[in-house]
Amino acid sequence: MSQTRVLTGITTTGTPHLGNYVGAIKPAIEASQDPSVQSFYFLADYHALIKCQDPKRVQQSRLEIAATWLALGLDTDNAIFYRQSDIPEIPELTWLLSCVCAKGLMNRAHAYKAAVAENEEAGNQDPDKGITMGLFGYPVLMAADILMFNANKVPVGRDQIQHIEMARDIAGRFNHLYKGDYFTLPNAVVDEKSQVLGGLDGRKMSKSYNNTIPLFVAEKKLQKLVRKIKTNSLEPGEPKDPDTCTLFQIYAAFASTEETAAMRQQYANGIGWGDAKNQVFEYLNAHLEKPRERYHALMEDPGHIEAVLQKGAERARQETAVTMDRLRSAVGLGRFH
Amino acid sequence: MSQTRVLTGITTTGTPHLGNYVGAIKPAIEASQDPSVQSFYFLADYHALIKCQDPKRVQQSRLEIAATWLALGLDTDNAIFYRQSDIPEIPELTWLLSCVCAKGLMNRAHAYKAAVAENEEAGNQDPDKGITMGLFGYPVLMAADILMFNANKVPVGRDQIQHIEMARDIAGRFNHLYKGDYFTLPNAVVDEKSQVLGGLDGRKMSKSYNNTIPLFVAEKKLQKLVRKIKTNSLEPGEPKDPDTCTLFQIYAAFASTEETAAMRQQYANGIGWGDAKNQVFEYLNAHLEKPRERYHALMEDPGHIEAVLQKGAERARQETAVTMDRLRSAVGLGRFH
Repeated sequence: MSQTRVLTGITTTGTPHLGNYVGAIKPAIEASQDPSVQSFYFLADYHALIKCQDPKRVQQSRLEIAATWLALGLDTDNAIFYRQSDIPEIPELTWLLSCVCAKGLMNRAHAYKAAVAENEEAGNQDPDKGITMGLFGYPVLMAADILMFNANKVPVGRDQIQHIEMARDIAGRFNHLYKGDYFTLPNAVVDEKSQVLGGLDGRKMSKSYNNTIPLFVAEKKLQKLVRKIKTNSLEPGEPKDPDTCTLFQIYAAFASTEETAAMRQQYANGIGWGDAKNQVFEYLNAHLEKPRERYHALMEDPGHIEAVLQKGAERARQETAVTMDRLRSAVGLGRFH
Repeated sequence: MSQTRVLTGITTTGTPHLGNYVGAIKPAIEASQDPSVQSFYFLADYHALIKCQDPKRVQQSRLEIAATWLALGLDTDNAIFYRQSDIPEIPELTWLLSCVCAKGLMNRAHAYKAAVAENEEAGNQDPDKGITMGLFGYPVLMAADILMFNANKVPVGRDQIQHIEMARDIAGRFNHLYKGDYFTLPNAVVDEKSQVLGGLDGRKMSKSYNNTIPLFVAEKKLQKLVRKIKTNSLEPGEPKDPDTCTLFQIYAAFASTEETAAMRQQYANGIGWGDAKNQVFEYLNAHLEKPRERYHALMEDPGHIEAVLQKGAERARQETAVTMDRLRSAVGLGRFH
């Protein structure tokens, strides 16, 4: 186990959009090709249940996300790509960890505290109104996700750093209580260069703002959406500022340095918005055409995606089965001989 | 599924004693022979981890409890007898239920509130001091234990009624959210006649009072313990009150109505405590000799117990696997076809 182990979970509640692609999917797929690393990528579908109780939405999102990552070239021979809900050892480990995890640790979780603050602001008598045990306890599930594979590195956004610290805390406590080096302490890896893309209205592109451009939307729809990106009222011929422009930012996220510099020049030269939008659309479309075709072919063949995920689960479980056997014995739940 | 389903969990942290036998094991084993009932008995070893982080104790208790129930004649062809930790669908269902269970429900659980009250009395700044997520959330695990098998009846002590109400609440919420009759609402069955046996010091026989007579202790040790049962200072020849006497109560729990009446007469006649203790010991010993032999033979053959439990787990999982498939599809975690 000298290879560095990197683990990435993908919550399955939405349809992948350009912002996901630029901020998370693209760097992750590139990282998966590093031969010095053993990568784990999983569809975090147990986590999806916390936020989404629409089964069709969850089911569809799992399929779309799996198809997206495969269409974009995730190397499933190198990386282990699986669905969380195919690994029964994960919820089992969650219980084992719950029994060593202080409730006080969860009281301090950002997501929980934010939900309580929202209730208090709304004047609700019960600060826990609308909060489920899933929302309250999911950092323990996340610890199980990570510790199960003894991941060394977990690429996360800033808002997730606390969860990795909690996983370290829980791991340390288990190791101490059961007197052994059962778990590796994971490290959060925050990509400071990670890009946050703007959406149609200029705010961060996010499902919750309803301002996204889905990654593999049909060509016509893509054109329509690019045309909807908010710009200002400057006329053709007037110089425009690329650095405050969402359209430019989206283009730059895909284009090469040279292409970006050329577009910057066109902004200075006063390119009209209609013209700029057409160019950005054409550029995006050319880059997304091939993976979009692969994506739609995959979406037409869910049985194939299932087979790929089953193969991944099998590889994962070769490890989780052995690990859980060891952990069961450690806590006193071993078999009788 | 017209048979009534009765489910009983046995927490595996202690060594079975006479109090357990009289209060719980004996009536449960008798109930298991009722052909109109489908009984489920399980070693609640995930629950054991909440209270006991000594793996040897947990492991030993699981073995002792399994051997005890088998030695006393649990009919494992009729009843389904399994170990909780052999059913991976249980922790998985626990997660699904966590995502529909209000945190506020757990805030009101007696065991949690008692732990908080203890912290407050002790003047601890943190009311959650020493409380784990396992202790806080175990009513959800218990709901999964019960709902997994659509149990109609759950025999419990008074202190457990709240947990059955919580299981009903969680079941109702899941059925409502996912628009189906996924779970049967269970009913608590409190045996009002259930006997609470006194221990060596006259208080309730309980591991936590360290006043127990283990059920299958060796003959010499049994004699020694019976002799230690607290009596008063009345001399031989003086009439004694059977109704305030732990020794008499223990005898009566095992003896027939006629035998009990005869002993009552001896008390009135002024039997000496030494004599009474010898008679009670002889009686208990004669009744426990055969099952004690079977118990020790079973304890010598853990592989056999393992095989019995594996067979039980296999029977249980024929059901849990199908149920979980259905539930996974219900929440949006079905396979892709």
